[in-house]
Amino acid sequence: MNDSYLNFVNSPFGARLARSLGLPKPEVLRRYRADRPEFDGIVAIGAGREPHLLDALATLVGGIGVTSVAHASAGLWVPLANRHGLMTGRFEAADSGSSSKLAALLFDASGIEDSSQLEPLHAFFHDTLRSLGKCGRIVVLGRPPQTCVNPRQWTAQRALEGFTRSLGKEARRGITANLVYVEPGAESGMEATLRFFLSPRSAYVSGQVVHIAAQVGDETGGEMDGETGGKTGSKASSTFDWAQPLAGLRAVVTGAARGIGGSIASVLAAEGAHVIGIDIPSARDALDATMRQLDGTALAFDIAAPEAPAQIAAALDEQGVDIVVHNAGITKDKTIAKMTEAAWQSVIDINLSAQERIDDALLAGGILRDGGRIIGVSSISGIAGNLGQTNYATSKAGVIGRVQSMAPHLRARGITINAVAPGFIETQMTAKIPLAIREAGRRMNSMSQGGQPVDVAQTIAWLAHPGSAGVSGQIVRVCGQSLIGA
Amino acid sequence: MNDSYLNFVNSPFGARLARSLGLPKPEVLRRYRADRPEFDGIVAIGAGREPHLLDALATLVGGIGVTSVAHASAGLWVPLANRHGLMTGRFEAADSGSSSKLAALLFDASGIEDSSQLEPLHAFFHDTLRSLGKCGRIVVLGRPPQTCVNPRQWTAQRALEGFTRSLGKEARRGITANLVYVEPGAESGMEATLRFFLSPRSAYVSGQVVHIAAQVGDETGGEMDGETGGKTGSKASSTFDWAQPLAGLRAVVTGAARGIGGSIASVLAAEGAHVIGIDIPSARDALDATMRQLDGTALAFDIAAPEAPAQIAAALDEQGVDIVVHNAGITKDKTIAKMTEAAWQSVIDINLSAQERIDDALLAGGILRDGGRIIGVSSISGIAGNLGQTNYATSKAGVIGRVQSMAPHLRARGITINAVAPGFIETQMTAKIPLAIREAGRRMNSMSQGGQPVDVAQTIAWLAHPGSAGVSGQIVRVCGQSLIGA
Repeated sequence: MNDSYLNFVNSPFGARLARSLGLPKPEVLRRYRADRPEFDGIVAIGAGREPHLLDALATLVGGIGVTSVAHASAGLWVPLANRHGLMTGRFEAADSGSSSKLAALLFDASGIEDSSQLEPLHAFFHDTLRSLGKCGRIVVLGRPPQTCVNPRQWTAQRALEGFTRSLGKEARRGITANLVYVEPGAESGMEATLRFFLSPRSAYVSGQVVHIAAQVGDETGGEMDGETGGKTGSKASSTFDWAQPLAGLRAVVTGAARGIGGSIASVLAAEGAHVIGIDIPSARDALDATMRQLDGTALAFDIAAPEAPAQIAAALDEQGVDIVVHNAGITKDKTIAKMTEAAWQSVIDINLSAQERIDDALLAGGILRDGGRIIGVSSISGIAGNLGQTNYATSKAGVIGRVQSMAPHLRARGITINAVAPGFIETQMTAKIPLAIREAGRRMNSMSQGGQPVDVAQTIAWLAHPGSAGVSGQIVRVCGQSLIGA
Repeated sequence: MNDSYLNFVNSPFGARLARSLGLPKPEVLRRYRADRPEFDGIVAIGAGREPHLLDALATLVGGIGVTSVAHASAGLWVPLANRHGLMTGRFEAADSGSSSKLAALLFDASGIEDSSQLEPLHAFFHDTLRSLGKCGRIVVLGRPPQTCVNPRQWTAQRALEGFTRSLGKEARRGITANLVYVEPGAESGMEATLRFFLSPRSAYVSGQVVHIAAQVGDETGGEMDGETGGKTGSKASSTFDWAQPLAGLRAVVTGAARGIGGSIASVLAAEGAHVIGIDIPSARDALDATMRQLDGTALAFDIAAPEAPAQIAAALDEQGVDIVVHNAGITKDKTIAKMTEAAWQSVIDINLSAQERIDDALLAGGILRDGGRIIGVSSISGIAGNLGQTNYATSKAGVIGRVQSMAPHLRARGITINAVAPGFIETQMTAKIPLAIREAGRRMNSMSQGGQPVDVAQTIAWLAHPGSAGVSGQIVRVCGQSLIGA
């Protein structure tokens, strides 16, 4: 739960010692605090040829209330920003004074249609990266390759992924770099996602690629979908309450008594949701205490029991539910030759099959309301596999399959389904890992440290946001850009 | 070019020392040699419920001429094998005698339709993994998730990926583990792929997922496609010359003078192809020497020159070409703040844009024949990004985009396009990496060693094989299941 190396090298003496010995010095990550401004500092804007997203970016920059500067690659920005009534200037190379540090670098690559047009990416980040401050944010914006009209454009847009991941690996200093692909027509649906990636809420999310799809109704101004009655259009940014986006919504969280689940419950409640926390009967006291603090509702069920789906459905039926977070999970690690059938079966059942049964019950009964959110918890092990975790990795890869297979089915009802995939998160579970392996897990990522449960929780809150309607079928790693992958 | 640690710990004294000090002992990988049998030993067969691929597996086992044993999970195998006239028996747990070692474990998971049906995977590998010999092979067979009819089946099939990757990480001892998804109707098109994954040719390919698509004509016995005249149906296994599968075909290889390109040229020639090697004029002597050895043709061109596509097209026009391998590539590593525009531009141009221009010239002129093969060379850096390689990673991610975007366009002509993504390969390039970083690159994979150029070449030869018609749009890592990924 405690990274003593991180604390030490960030103490006055430890920092001096680390410097003289050439030891790595992980940055203390800036995380969201309700008593501090979420956005401040200067954002530099760059662009490739014919950028399509600058107008939407101007709305965003105005909405979050920061100052922008235009790099030479984004000449269109100045008149545009003026039209939007924004404070703006031109980017001048930093004179290495820390007062000139930038808070974020935003690059609109959406108009790049050929690999020969990629150079402005180099020009912008070549000029600006050194001026980006600690815990700064990099967001590259493009068009989803699979929506591109020809192979040349698809290729150039796909190339952005290698670029952004490389930037994340060389930026260090707590800086995150992410790539957001915005489908044509989805421009009005990108604000919640961009706010997340620019905010300290995404402190431990880097090297990720997110697609924002256009919603039914995006072009017609958010009309009701006649057949199902679901509101699937994205709302204009002004209609969201950015401080309490989940106000009036009900969220179920499994495994909510403590740890990551407790943190998820607490963040969703802070965003305004009424949380219904589920945990096993033996954790009833901890669950009750957590839910009391959040004015939530505690339900002590074993989610793997055959009767659980019906019980949960019955408990939620009257008022329904808007957000379902499948956080409950267990590990029973052994190499396969030593793994018992029971250890295999219980991990698959609790981590995967139980989710399927519960979702089916909530969906069949219409208990999960139209426009709802399902969020699973996968794992880096589910992506990359892991020694001694055939059962766990199978279950967590299954969660990915669940997300990919259900997303198209749920689209007509405006329900999204996504998963987070945590890397090394500082919890009671990881505190039990032997020191050498724990240290490797902590350092083998672009942040050179483990994440905190709140990093997972904040990522889930973004996926649960009403403004994330265009984000579905996706797996977002919360891993500080861990080296480990598939 | 030389892994002295690997050699040392596999010497009599080094092995004793490594054992007493608890040092890792990477296995000397068994690689393909024309003077040794490609397949021998016993293959154990396992299966989940209602396996669909056992019949095709029986054809394969008969074709490669090995003995099989049926695990309890594959009760159907014994009568089936008898029908096919195969030597077969029942799997008995090993009595730890090395004479009872298995050469391969094959599991047919294609009939699994729900996460609650995954247990036979555990049962089979629990019982058999310890009996698998050094450099043994594991292949799990399933159905491509996106072709599954319902989310439950999709989820269970997608779960196989986490399982297989975990097995690869725990098996060690030079054992590879790969997952092959066979589309319904593509059963007759899986033999070339299974032969590759069972052969010593795939020594450094592990943790990979390959889809085999059904071909036009698969169900009608390989009819001509009237519109384009392309033969896109898979041939029955007996129609391939497994010893000289590329006989009569012409293959272009860029960067063919030496290194990985030289190895690719040499393997394709050994399989029967006439190789046209291209390299820059300054490498003309080495190119000429390599091509003379292979009875190939040397073309000294700078592929990045504006006139190169037309020159290459003109040189090939009369006889056309069947296989194009885009191997030529350069690195110019620097962090982006220090990278010049010229370093950016030349890497993008040579590694990516030149390929696009050449392919377009060969395709537009019909010089690449119907049923042809395009094979790119991507990189782990293109998947995961890499510090100091924004230019290189962008170009190599673009190669992935190229493969994904072109595959559907080329399908009607029976042309496939794929890429290999090498991890740490022992070359002159990697020999220049500082020792500590080189050692990390070598050991951070399931084989605990770097690969050889021939490992990349053999993987390309499999993709070039006439029997790989169902494999297109895919990226296959040749990385020994490197930890590093996205």
